[in-house]
Amino acid sequence: MDDERIDDLQYKGLKLIQKKSGFCFGVDAVLLSNFADIRKNDRVLDMCAGTGIVGILIAAKTGAAKVTGLEIQPCISEMADRSIKLNGLENKVDIVCGDLKDALRLFGPSSFNAIVTNPPYMSKECGLINPSDTVAISRHEILCTLEDVIRVSARLLVPGGRLAMVHRPGRLADILYLMRSNGVEPKRLRMVHPSPYKKPNMILIDATRGGKPQLKVLEPLYVYDETGKYSSEINKIYCRGEYTADD
Amino acid sequence: MDDERIDDLQYKGLKLIQKKSGFCFGVDAVLLSNFADIRKNDRVLDMCAGTGIVGILIAAKTGAAKVTGLEIQPCISEMADRSIKLNGLENKVDIVCGDLKDALRLFGPSSFNAIVTNPPYMSKECGLINPSDTVAISRHEILCTLEDVIRVSARLLVPGGRLAMVHRPGRLADILYLMRSNGVEPKRLRMVHPSPYKKPNMILIDATRGGKPQLKVLEPLYVYDETGKYSSEINKIYCRGEYTADD
Repeated sequence: MDDERIDDLQYKGLKLIQKKSGFCFGVDAVLLSNFADIRKNDRVLDMCAGTGIVGILIAAKTGAAKVTGLEIQPCISEMADRSIKLNGLENKVDIVCGDLKDALRLFGPSSFNAIVTNPPYMSKECGLINPSDTVAISRHEILCTLEDVIRVSARLLVPGGRLAMVHRPGRLADILYLMRSNGVEPKRLRMVHPSPYKKPNMILIDATRGGKPQLKVLEPLYVYDETGKYSSEINKIYCRGEYTADD
Repeated sequence: MDDERIDDLQYKGLKLIQKKSGFCFGVDAVLLSNFADIRKNDRVLDMCAGTGIVGILIAAKTGAAKVTGLEIQPCISEMADRSIKLNGLENKVDIVCGDLKDALRLFGPSSFNAIVTNPPYMSKECGLINPSDTVAISRHEILCTLEDVIRVSARLLVPGGRLAMVHRPGRLADILYLMRSNGVEPKRLRMVHPSPYKKPNMILIDATRGGKPQLKVLEPLYVYDETGKYSSEINKIYCRGEYTADD
């Protein structure tokens, strides 16, 4: 289609169809798929799946039994579906077009071992929004709020199941508060910084349904090192791509 | 006294009396006094004041009108009182020996513009504790919990007043959750790392009574730089010591 392009995910030959004028995947999605603790035979939900990037990477990188992407926008979920087929992953990943506020009815409670999500970052109040705009829907909390995402995830997870999220540092207090209030206890936090002496511009966080309180704050992840080159960890995530037990 | 020593605070000739066998001040207290946003004419409370280090540094560094230290252990608060006199700060700092759970009765609600606290880090459950031991009381949540500190602080602050705390990263979720639950909204978070590629081992956080939700995560603070020397910021905090508006 005229408004589409096919991008190389630079990992095992995976490809992704994206809208030229739409919301394109970024380092957030790649880092989330690397950070999430996905175990063998997990049933995984990618909530707010967008182009399908996170689910496709997880299906290719991990031993998950099945990855389901939930995306509310029909034109985007149809595109994600074509990306899955383009990569021959239709036995492992599927996309459901629907509203996450209906997810309990769609999937049933306690139906996933792990949920990953790269939700809209900006609250409704921020900036000018055209609600018919697919970019705006992907970026702003128009069709769902952070609270919706966490509340619904808590109910979709099995006890002991894990929720992994990428978001902005400004929402850290909201995220930790909402996770604990909804019974998914924050367990690991990793800050992502452009370079060692800069503020973080992204956070990776996971939580366990019914977990005990004790947050591990991990080593920071720097995109560039102090010499201005990609850090060795970023090179490893992008080029080697594996996330092994001894990482 | 035999069990005491006098330490140089390496700032404007300030000195501190400490027990040789007791809990001695560390980098935490110095960083907290530097991090806290203390304004001209503020009435400041140092909760869990211990040896008085934080209050003494704040009195010497800032334009606070008055700093009150609240410490539950009589032998420690008496020693803090002597440190205040040793530094000639008795017009600016005083020490009250009392239980923070009585603080509303002692001081009245909404009686401080700012509260600083370096509370016991370890929960009661951790490790072996001898409850008669002053070190154990300074380190463990024996006589007060994190929840007590935050709940009482929220009521002692004026609306718009600020609570600054130093703690351990493992308690970050507890702290953010309790601050918001008690109506003091987390506003600034700074992670302190031994060096750039290490996990943080300390967190500095402040919150505003009745503030709007939006957390600023600041640049990390490294104690040592990547060459193994004290970072330039640590040198500045310890040697120059000033915390100016353009920092």
